[in-house]
Amino acid sequence: MRDFSQDHRWLSLNTATIRKQRGVEVPLDRIVDQCAERGIRAISPWRDQVAAVGLERIAGQLKAHDMRLSGYCRGGFFPAPDAAGLKAALDDNRRAIDEAKTLDAPCLVLVVGALPGALDGRALYKDIGRARGEVRDGIAASLDYAREVGMPLAIEPLHPMQAADRACVNTLEHALDLCDELDPSRSGALGVALDIYHVWWDPKLEAQIARAGKERLLAYHVCDWRTPTRDLLSDRAMMGDGVVELRKIRGWVEAAGFEGYSEVEIFSTLDWWQRSGEETLDTCIERHRSVV
Amino acid sequence: MRDFSQDHRWLSLNTATIRKQRGVEVPLDRIVDQCAERGIRAISPWRDQVAAVGLERIAGQLKAHDMRLSGYCRGGFFPAPDAAGLKAALDDNRRAIDEAKTLDAPCLVLVVGALPGALDGRALYKDIGRARGEVRDGIAASLDYAREVGMPLAIEPLHPMQAADRACVNTLEHALDLCDELDPSRSGALGVALDIYHVWWDPKLEAQIARAGKERLLAYHVCDWRTPTRDLLSDRAMMGDGVVELRKIRGWVEAAGFEGYSEVEIFSTLDWWQRSGEETLDTCIERHRSVV
Repeated sequence: MRDFSQDHRWLSLNTATIRKQRGVEVPLDRIVDQCAERGIRAISPWRDQVAAVGLERIAGQLKAHDMRLSGYCRGGFFPAPDAAGLKAALDDNRRAIDEAKTLDAPCLVLVVGALPGALDGRALYKDIGRARGEVRDGIAASLDYAREVGMPLAIEPLHPMQAADRACVNTLEHALDLCDELDPSRSGALGVALDIYHVWWDPKLEAQIARAGKERLLAYHVCDWRTPTRDLLSDRAMMGDGVVELRKIRGWVEAAGFEGYSEVEIFSTLDWWQRSGEETLDTCIERHRSVV
Repeated sequence: MRDFSQDHRWLSLNTATIRKQRGVEVPLDRIVDQCAERGIRAISPWRDQVAAVGLERIAGQLKAHDMRLSGYCRGGFFPAPDAAGLKAALDDNRRAIDEAKTLDAPCLVLVVGALPGALDGRALYKDIGRARGEVRDGIAASLDYAREVGMPLAIEPLHPMQAADRACVNTLEHALDLCDELDPSRSGALGVALDIYHVWWDPKLEAQIARAGKERLLAYHVCDWRTPTRDLLSDRAMMGDGVVELRKIRGWVEAAGFEGYSEVEIFSTLDWWQRSGEETLDTCIERHRSVV
């Protein structure tokens, strides 16, 4: 297992973590500079943040800083109300793949979607099995293009509390079943983004990480689980401030062959998004060395 | 599959559902009368509600109404900070078994517990595997006495969002693994309480319900999953107001041999607990017939 205590060369910053600083939205080019100032070698940016500054400009800035991506957030949201909606979703995923390619991302992270309309509180149907079928078909369709251009797709299983509205793939086992079905040769074109926030509770986690192996483990995200958790989406804790056994899980991931970045992804309306970006980044670096 | 549309003979009321009416705590004897007035034949009361009125008094009242229990809430919370805490937990479970016996409950529901202290935001340790071991040992110890007096124990898998603080058994599969380990002969002494709120999202639900079978399915709880869910504990929806496929899941449960009550359990700080008990009960009955 790699020793993280001496430096933060394997720290990546998911840019959602400091997208709000002191409660105010901060543009991605500023975030990239803040990371570069601290010797952070990789980030995982969100599409809307990239679009707000401009894809080419961000690509140039990353190149100037010699900064890499640990992933690109995000594609997915395949289930749609109708054929037109499905086509729009597939077109959008194609654009996301192109953007990921431009930014030289190692993978496009997929938040696969769930019951259409549920995110707005008006689910168009309740059949989660149907949504799961539409997710499978959507990934299969996107995978053809992703293979063509050489952009791996990383299915991110989301916590079961987000099964209705954000992603109906909720366990690593389910995500790996999809990988086995759609990429049986373990070609590297399809894998998973493993975020400890979503999977830490799973009694089958260790065994499924071993099953995933190096070919399927495309990204690894850390934060922590707060007790009590006050919001189903945006109340993640800083590493070390919650109940997740971070080092144990990283041990499993590395034993399976993962050698990539440990990407910090914290959504925190009430706490970290109210602090300065400097404080958040410095804390991420310190915790990366001491507890991740 | 039974036809619920003509009457509500298979409706049971978990008394947490109307423990608060118009925002005010209502004593259990009043709740029992409210249920009896509507021809509700069974309830599942909570220990603190029983204790507040008196065990013998509630037992007498139930007998006078010829009202049954569909379960008794609840035992569990086995993981403890130390040996004294463990002994206290086991003693308390023994008392819960005795109370369940006095009330002629068909089972004692177990919310098994999780990381000691986490419910107060101060987990004493983070090793969820250790907590799971302590849960297994605690159930095993309680099962000896439960067998002796003839009170089945029903492990309730809780939603993974409650893994840290309330129950570290979070899937039906895990609960059934425990049942197989501790009661391999499927004697009826150990089974599960299946609450759709906790398990509806699980892609393996249908298969695991079939695996459980009649001997393991000791209780069946219904409510619904709201989008958005605003609180991790107390924002359950009335049946029909959320995204759960209630009738499909009941079909699976009955196909596995379950013939008991459909128990309504709704914790709802913001909505149903603000309404009158009459409105809540009438709505439960209507929805039992129309959507459960």
